[in-house]
Amino acid sequence: MRATVMHKAHDVRIESVPDAAIRKPTDAVIRITRACICGSDLWPYNGGPNKDGQQMGHEAIGVVVDVGSAVQTIKRGQVVIMPFAFSDGSCLFCEDGLQTACTHGGFFGVGGDAGGAQAEALRIPYADGTLYPLPVNEDDALMPSLLTLSDVMGTGHHAAVVARVAPGRSVAVVGDGAVGICGVIAARRLGAEQIIMLGRHPDRIELAKQFGATDVVSERGAEAIERVRSLTGGYGVQSVLECVGTEQAIATSMGIVRAGGAIGRVGVPHYDAVPDAQQMFFGNVTVGGGPAPVRAYIDELLSDVMEGRIQPGRVFDRTVGLDEVPEGYRAMNDREALKVMVKP
Amino acid sequence: MRATVMHKAHDVRIESVPDAAIRKPTDAVIRITRACICGSDLWPYNGGPNKDGQQMGHEAIGVVVDVGSAVQTIKRGQVVIMPFAFSDGSCLFCEDGLQTACTHGGFFGVGGDAGGAQAEALRIPYADGTLYPLPVNEDDALMPSLLTLSDVMGTGHHAAVVARVAPGRSVAVVGDGAVGICGVIAARRLGAEQIIMLGRHPDRIELAKQFGATDVVSERGAEAIERVRSLTGGYGVQSVLECVGTEQAIATSMGIVRAGGAIGRVGVPHYDAVPDAQQMFFGNVTVGGGPAPVRAYIDELLSDVMEGRIQPGRVFDRTVGLDEVPEGYRAMNDREALKVMVKP
Repeated sequence: MRATVMHKAHDVRIESVPDAAIRKPTDAVIRITRACICGSDLWPYNGGPNKDGQQMGHEAIGVVVDVGSAVQTIKRGQVVIMPFAFSDGSCLFCEDGLQTACTHGGFFGVGGDAGGAQAEALRIPYADGTLYPLPVNEDDALMPSLLTLSDVMGTGHHAAVVARVAPGRSVAVVGDGAVGICGVIAARRLGAEQIIMLGRHPDRIELAKQFGATDVVSERGAEAIERVRSLTGGYGVQSVLECVGTEQAIATSMGIVRAGGAIGRVGVPHYDAVPDAQQMFFGNVTVGGGPAPVRAYIDELLSDVMEGRIQPGRVFDRTVGLDEVPEGYRAMNDREALKVMVKP
Repeated sequence: MRATVMHKAHDVRIESVPDAAIRKPTDAVIRITRACICGSDLWPYNGGPNKDGQQMGHEAIGVVVDVGSAVQTIKRGQVVIMPFAFSDGSCLFCEDGLQTACTHGGFFGVGGDAGGAQAEALRIPYADGTLYPLPVNEDDALMPSLLTLSDVMGTGHHAAVVARVAPGRSVAVVGDGAVGICGVIAARRLGAEQIIMLGRHPDRIELAKQFGATDVVSERGAEAIERVRSLTGGYGVQSVLECVGTEQAIATSMGIVRAGGAIGRVGVPHYDAVPDAQQMFFGNVTVGGGPAPVRAYIDELLSDVMEGRIQPGRVFDRTVGLDEVPEGYRAMNDREALKVMVKP
């Protein structure tokens, strides 16, 4: 079968790899009907740590084509969401709804044993604990929005939950990528009154505004902090959704959060220590977040997608076939595309 | 009047200072009936940043002897708790119960305009917002426990709240000082099932056990982490109360917290950045805390003290008069005393 393979910086290819197949009784195999390229895929694309020959892609919807002998709830023919992490569904973390800490879990598309979703098919470990069956057929018009439940919408929601967004609160979203824009949707959905988007790409800002951003700050660094403070009576915001992961992003987050506020980090951190530990302490600021347990959040978000109350699928502004995936990486990396959907 | 004045490392004296007096219409003056020495007072005592001539002490119970013309609820003759921070009682932070972020607030005993409580009397800014009247007389037998509501008991409780202690959860308390021991009381009170005390002073450990510590870890660093993990099935604890403030204490906290867990910091940090930002992220660990809004917590804790369900006053193991305060500092610094009460 064909799959997306990262070799080195800017060298991502579509190649023949061994067919996805059942290896353990708890496995399933899905035929990928929709996948996408994630902002985090651009780190290895730009020379960040990657394993030579790493199969890429961790967000998908597919159709179950085979199940192992121990799979009990997932059936052949079901249309399923594949969250970016696999999880056994039964350990103490899965029971708590933190599937991204599953004792038997792991991540798709990061090399090693698990393959990637930018491919024709994929083996799914712990199919019962991992896959989420959908009540639609594989060509449903809601596919783009449903696909975001495999990562970006659940991740934006996680940032908002960790940042304690609640009715009437003031929120800032750091980063205008697809996750940041989903963070705007999540903040609005949870009742935020003021939603300040920190970003500088006109198309993305326009989309964020349509989703509920009330203010836009295009400055960076100290100027951005100054602007957010001036928009919030000098106090800063109660909730910060940090959707980038750079040292500047977390420093900006610390600069704009109100005393007693919370920062939800969902951008994979490219720094070793959280800065401003004393300022954070004297302001009683909370910092949390991490890989979103999107599997758990589907229960909460699905009906809003199915009934059209949220439309996170609008973050996709380009669709490619499998052969065009390398071009999709280039377009996202050059900021020509916000988020690329893949139809294998 | 006489007050405690810090001059330089190991040079703390009882001196004559101008009498406490009303300066603003919202002030009150209290005669101090009980004060104490705090672990944080030992930082300037050991040469940490201090202002030459800084008046010391931030925890007290007193009797109101004078009120300004704008004071409305506080009356002469009332016995009151003086929380370690003063607060106007009306700003957006005070309304939210975060008095330690009050827009007009500040701290006692840190030098500058506000005096210190290890003294015969003290001027109290924003008396209505700051002082908490008690339904007892000044010699009530519960005074030691009531006095802890001015700081250490409320601070231990804050650590537990921020660390999300709840019924059935596993908790570790880093630090066996008075705040850590109050953290044990708070964790037990909030229903923790397992309470691991990290400390090495036999008397303190004994007291912690009496208050509900189920396990004791006397190792440090990597060995302490190993021990806590072995006591928790390898997973670590769900809640860490970090009651020290050193770099080793926060590093240990990161090492023993379970994925999805929370660290409540109440030790004033003596480090600039929170370590292990990536480990924290991939474990979805939350770090929060800061100066405890003890004024808000009195509402919750007072009845438990009044009815004897908690006895945090047992952390006091020495009582001194004002003249003996320098000796009290020495005894606490030499770990001869856990916490020293002052009866001016």
